[in-house]
Amino acid sequence: MSHPCLIGLDWGTSALRAMLIDGHGQVIEEQFRRWGVMHLPDGGFRSAYDEITSVWRTEWPDLPCLAAGMVGSRQGWIETPYCDAPATIEMLATRLTSVPDIGVRIVPGVALRGTRPDVIRGEETQIFGSLDQGKDRCIVLPGSHSKWVTMKSGGITDFHTFMTGEIFAALRDHTILGIAASPETSTEAFDRGVLAARAASGGIAPLLFSARSLVLDGQLDPSAALDYLSGLLIGDELHVARLNAKPLLIGDADLCRRYQRAMNLYEIEADIATPGASAKGLWRIARAAGLIPVER
Amino acid sequence: MSHPCLIGLDWGTSALRAMLIDGHGQVIEEQFRRWGVMHLPDGGFRSAYDEITSVWRTEWPDLPCLAAGMVGSRQGWIETPYCDAPATIEMLATRLTSVPDIGVRIVPGVALRGTRPDVIRGEETQIFGSLDQGKDRCIVLPGSHSKWVTMKSGGITDFHTFMTGEIFAALRDHTILGIAASPETSTEAFDRGVLAARAASGGIAPLLFSARSLVLDGQLDPSAALDYLSGLLIGDELHVARLNAKPLLIGDADLCRRYQRAMNLYEIEADIATPGASAKGLWRIARAAGLIPVER
Repeated sequence: MSHPCLIGLDWGTSALRAMLIDGHGQVIEEQFRRWGVMHLPDGGFRSAYDEITSVWRTEWPDLPCLAAGMVGSRQGWIETPYCDAPATIEMLATRLTSVPDIGVRIVPGVALRGTRPDVIRGEETQIFGSLDQGKDRCIVLPGSHSKWVTMKSGGITDFHTFMTGEIFAALRDHTILGIAASPETSTEAFDRGVLAARAASGGIAPLLFSARSLVLDGQLDPSAALDYLSGLLIGDELHVARLNAKPLLIGDADLCRRYQRAMNLYEIEADIATPGASAKGLWRIARAAGLIPVER
Repeated sequence: MSHPCLIGLDWGTSALRAMLIDGHGQVIEEQFRRWGVMHLPDGGFRSAYDEITSVWRTEWPDLPCLAAGMVGSRQGWIETPYCDAPATIEMLATRLTSVPDIGVRIVPGVALRGTRPDVIRGEETQIFGSLDQGKDRCIVLPGSHSKWVTMKSGGITDFHTFMTGEIFAALRDHTILGIAASPETSTEAFDRGVLAARAASGGIAPLLFSARSLVLDGQLDPSAALDYLSGLLIGDELHVARLNAKPLLIGDADLCRRYQRAMNLYEIEADIATPGASAKGLWRIARAAGLIPVER
């Protein structure tokens, strides 16, 4: 077994993933709990941290611990101020915030200021974990809040948030479009939604009701309506982003494939990042911060 | 007191309004209950109808009764098939569906077929009730589902549904944008949202997160975020609809004024319909159907 040199925490809104990481940034062991920042167990952050890492810390009491994600937000364990873009690994590494008396350090998110402010928190770590797949490219991290990030010379220079996943869930669960929802998957309906969004000139707001009216008119099977809606929303995201180079997709495998499929309908090829981006990113930032030795 | 000649029911998804209507289409008395098609009392449609009209029917047992709205949908009292557009009062009047053994007649909705199918149900009656304010114009009925309707020579020829109100409610109640919601109203933030939507070139999907990030960056007061979001959504509706003539707004007074304000920011003047459109429409359709005598 390779020797552990870091405990990494990927601690988001809905879940906590703890990783025992070796000297090459690879995951040795992993623990997952639904203890997101908004769903903590009794005892809060401290109890969650103690419980998920106790076995490792008993065996290796001196391991450093680095966390990324919403754990550093205002609603998190300790607020970790954003680092302004453009941001590099080195900049993040000099701005870690420590949880007092515990020694857990937290990676800052990145903020864009100005007339179109935006923020990322957690994604910066995944991005730096995928650095060997591109230092100058567009990176897309699909999810509740999809992030489109521009990397230049290994630094995060610009980004844009689309609430696609959260909007999809709200429309599915809380509007008429969720009626007759079905767990079946129709790639045909998904493609149809993507292409309808691609052909739309003024955004998809005027198209959303078609996910209902096409069903009422017998032109869309009720069981396929949600895939059509998903296609509309993801297609619109692609439409607006006006992608013109081969992007790198980072995130949940199924969702990345869904985006890859939609991009193909826009005649754009996309790469999907190799798994383990969070662990690799935490390891790289920990090295840059001097928390673990750099192998020579 | 003027003599009643019709009981009219405006029976939608969330509420039931019963109106005692005179020979000029004016409301003599009115009853309102939160007995929408999806929120019926025990005993269902029949009980709701009996209870809300019993006093009137005891006094005037021969009054005809005409209903409009979702009461005629598949989930309604009795399904009343849509009338295809273009649709006139006379066409609707010949296609009323009667509830068996009860004598209540229901006005059909209007359907648009083809590649962009769409439907209205209930709005057709309000539109025909406002016919004296324009037989050739664009009519906008804001609401959960806003309807943009084109009238030509007194007939409904085209229309388009925007789910603006329902999307707003889903985003407010079920996404991060509803955080720090406040009952205060900020017309300034509303205007800012409208103007941001007006300036957007590809729909507002990329702008939605700004209702959050502007707050995080201190550029928008949390209490004003929902008005900004409302401005974005209504502004986008106006952007897409590319209005170029003076429209007529029909519906809830506050909402009509909100749309009128947004239209002003697009340099478009709008009229707001005189109240009582539903009653007037039911009365006109009842006359065209021969349910009540036409005065000469």
